[in-house]
Amino acid sequence: MSTPPAATPVPVPAARSHTSASRLARSAGTVPSLAEFERTVRDTREHVVTNTEMVPLDRLHGWHYDEGTGFIAHESGRFFSVEGLQVETRSGLTAWGQPIINQPETGILGFLAKEIDGVLHFLMQLKAEPGNRNGLQLSPTVQATKSNYTGIHGGLDVPYLEFFQDPARRRVIADVRQSEQGSRFLRKRNRNMVVDTREPVEARDGFVWLTLGQLHRLMSTEDLMNMSTRSVLACLPLGDGALATGDEGFATALVRSLASDGPELHSLVDVLSWITEARTRSEMHARTVPLDALTDWEFTGGRITHRAGRHFDVVGVRVEAVGREVGQWWQPMIRAQSTELAALLVTRVRGVLHVLMQLRAEPGLTDTAELAPTVQYTPDHYAQPPEERPPFLDLVQNARAADIRFDTVLSDEGGRFYHTGSRHVVVETGWLPEPPEFRWLTLAQLEQLTQHSHYLNMQARSVLACLRSLFSGGDR
Amino acid sequence: MSTPPAATPVPVPAARSHTSASRLARSAGTVPSLAEFERTVRDTREHVVTNTEMVPLDRLHGWHYDEGTGFIAHESGRFFSVEGLQVETRSGLTAWGQPIINQPETGILGFLAKEIDGVLHFLMQLKAEPGNRNGLQLSPTVQATKSNYTGIHGGLDVPYLEFFQDPARRRVIADVRQSEQGSRFLRKRNRNMVVDTREPVEARDGFVWLTLGQLHRLMSTEDLMNMSTRSVLACLPLGDGALATGDEGFATALVRSLASDGPELHSLVDVLSWITEARTRSEMHARTVPLDALTDWEFTGGRITHRAGRHFDVVGVRVEAVGREVGQWWQPMIRAQSTELAALLVTRVRGVLHVLMQLRAEPGLTDTAELAPTVQYTPDHYAQPPEERPPFLDLVQNARAADIRFDTVLSDEGGRFYHTGSRHVVVETGWLPEPPEFRWLTLAQLEQLTQHSHYLNMQARSVLACLRSLFSGGDR
Repeated sequence: MSTPPAATPVPVPAARSHTSASRLARSAGTVPSLAEFERTVRDTREHVVTNTEMVPLDRLHGWHYDEGTGFIAHESGRFFSVEGLQVETRSGLTAWGQPIINQPETGILGFLAKEIDGVLHFLMQLKAEPGNRNGLQLSPTVQATKSNYTGIHGGLDVPYLEFFQDPARRRVIADVRQSEQGSRFLRKRNRNMVVDTREPVEARDGFVWLTLGQLHRLMSTEDLMNMSTRSVLACLPLGDGALATGDEGFATALVRSLASDGPELHSLVDVLSWITEARTRSEMHARTVPLDALTDWEFTGGRITHRAGRHFDVVGVRVEAVGREVGQWWQPMIRAQSTELAALLVTRVRGVLHVLMQLRAEPGLTDTAELAPTVQYTPDHYAQPPEERPPFLDLVQNARAADIRFDTVLSDEGGRFYHTGSRHVVVETGWLPEPPEFRWLTLAQLEQLTQHSHYLNMQARSVLACLRSLFSGGDR
Repeated sequence: MSTPPAATPVPVPAARSHTSASRLARSAGTVPSLAEFERTVRDTREHVVTNTEMVPLDRLHGWHYDEGTGFIAHESGRFFSVEGLQVETRSGLTAWGQPIINQPETGILGFLAKEIDGVLHFLMQLKAEPGNRNGLQLSPTVQATKSNYTGIHGGLDVPYLEFFQDPARRRVIADVRQSEQGSRFLRKRNRNMVVDTREPVEARDGFVWLTLGQLHRLMSTEDLMNMSTRSVLACLPLGDGALATGDEGFATALVRSLASDGPELHSLVDVLSWITEARTRSEMHARTVPLDALTDWEFTGGRITHRAGRHFDVVGVRVEAVGREVGQWWQPMIRAQSTELAALLVTRVRGVLHVLMQLRAEPGLTDTAELAPTVQYTPDHYAQPPEERPPFLDLVQNARAADIRFDTVLSDEGGRFYHTGSRHVVVETGWLPEPPEFRWLTLAQLEQLTQHSHYLNMQARSVLACLRSLFSGGDR
């Protein structure tokens, strides 16, 4: 019975190895000169240009306010719509309404990797998204909504898409659907992929090969690495690939934290139980409603704004692009009222770096609550009562320069957000007791969780990528 | 900076061990006589009685058809409602409507465990649910909806609930929200928990302490282990706790499959990528609609039935119970038209058992598609065209007796399903090529996935518990 039919030989079991992790570590430890990269940026800047001008929402060609649904939608019924969302926590104690983007399709954010001279390189794209305040940013090889890659933009084909769609042409390093911002998007997820090919690949105009070490170095450049790039970088399995150098420096504590056998404050089963408990408790009721049913929001001056001037506006833009898929289009965008803060507190426990993560419910998340940065906070232009200030905010804002390991403003996704960014901060501290919604976790634990959907929210992945960029790699 | 404040000592990192797994293995290898259990069943049968009689849906006290929504709901607005669901696959090629149960709250299915004479025992409850065709079934220590344990039944307190709610009184062995049947429930999940306590615990009337070995032995008794019990058993981390005995028997292949270092046909990253790909492709549109908008269903004779007599009926029942929370109540229930088949094909690859799992989209699942048994199939009383017969069905139905490792009819959840059961079958076969929606996985891989929500559907967990019951345990 255990003999297979003669015509179909039993396949050989998959090899178990740390191949990906050690190749990624070598790539992280390789930092060639960025001169060629900078030349490519200058060249690309000359022929990839996007001009964006603000236009009233009611004068966006192709878009209309649908009287039946009360949503702003495209006449094709595709792309995305802007809807109202009415939210109530299960306890009934808190309720609010807000506009939200509904784009019920899973896009691809994909890194194509390839060994060049024995070192893994990633093919990155210089892209000028309409919401970017600085023109070009560094994006994944492929960053495409389903509308993009099934051609309804009427645009050009998406370059390199074939490596993400045809299993025969690549090996998978990471492939997981991750949430977008749960307070801006309704159950939106993108497929974060890293694949590796042995085929010859030419870098087209506007594309450039970079090692992981170069990507890490560029992370601290203001508004350069776009949001999708940060999200995918956070999903890379760095794992056990690197050796601690033996000194007691920050980088060594980081490498020890990445190792799967490092000591950790909480076992994984306890972490998962804590998440289960919080998700059971924090369930929300959220239902879409017409935009004009949102009592705290108004349509005025061609945009939708919060009556107290808080949170964000929904604005309209006209975009003229050279070197992108389509020459001219109109669309709604989100414009934040202020720069968000995404901050991680980190500490060393017996030489192993631990990160203080927060479980946070957001109405647009597919599964209730996800891990967020220690502090995820949007300052208001108005004075706020002290009880609205989140835990650890003061600690981050008053950190000594010597304890700040990372501090850079990086942009939100320029296809949906207009001139909107977040300050990404990593601060080292002594150990602090955990409030109920917080836990100190190792990077290895966070890496295990990012293999799966719905554990780390967009802001957490983004600032985690910043923290991990301080990892110097090194060959095992 | 890395020195913590003096007043708050840094906690000690969690111990890394296989403690749970080896204790569970010892419990699985211990099979005392079942005489006391059988005596308890006889005793309990005398004073725990549930009488259920069919009542037309429009004559259920406390329930009504809401003209506004078109749903059947309880007058308190709580418990659950029966709604219409209109489903369309993303491709638009397939569409259907059906009634579905909406119960937007997460219940607890909890096993309380305790060492007795050095062996882990589980406190099981003998419960007479109204839909059981045979009276008593074996249920988890706690099996409670939120309505139960927050008291709106007006019933008695839920015994032993405190161990699942108070972290100080237990250690967690497993704690994960898992889906209920995705074709019957709308995004319903229950919290599957196993906790371990050192406090003295008395077995109340109707409760009994059993080892894992005893639970495994009882699994092959028809209609005894209830659905919740099977679901929780599938979430137990058996892992690396047992040693293979060295012979080449089925049990040895099973133990090797549970070990996390065993060879496996597909690496975990490839399995996760396959799941991601299928979920991206199989997204569905599902929206609730009034029951009377379901064109293929009709209200007739006091129940809702499919016009062609397929699938299931929604019926009403009146329940009279002695020894349960409340004395008398009315409720709608689901009654299947036939006994479902949940079958696993298993094969040995280099001495390691592999299980053929199917990725299956169901409209009520929170995340599109989950792993299902090789064959999950509801036979119809009518002749079906051959193309509607699922892959591998013939192979299961025509299996030689010598290849059938498990074959028992077990009940669906008796709180919602009336006299409805599924035939659980495990068949050993030679290796067979995988269709695109199928993969051969090891038990260790399935165990890794059941740590997380949304990977294994109810039927998969149920028949996986049957397969794992063939594991004899043994001390390491």
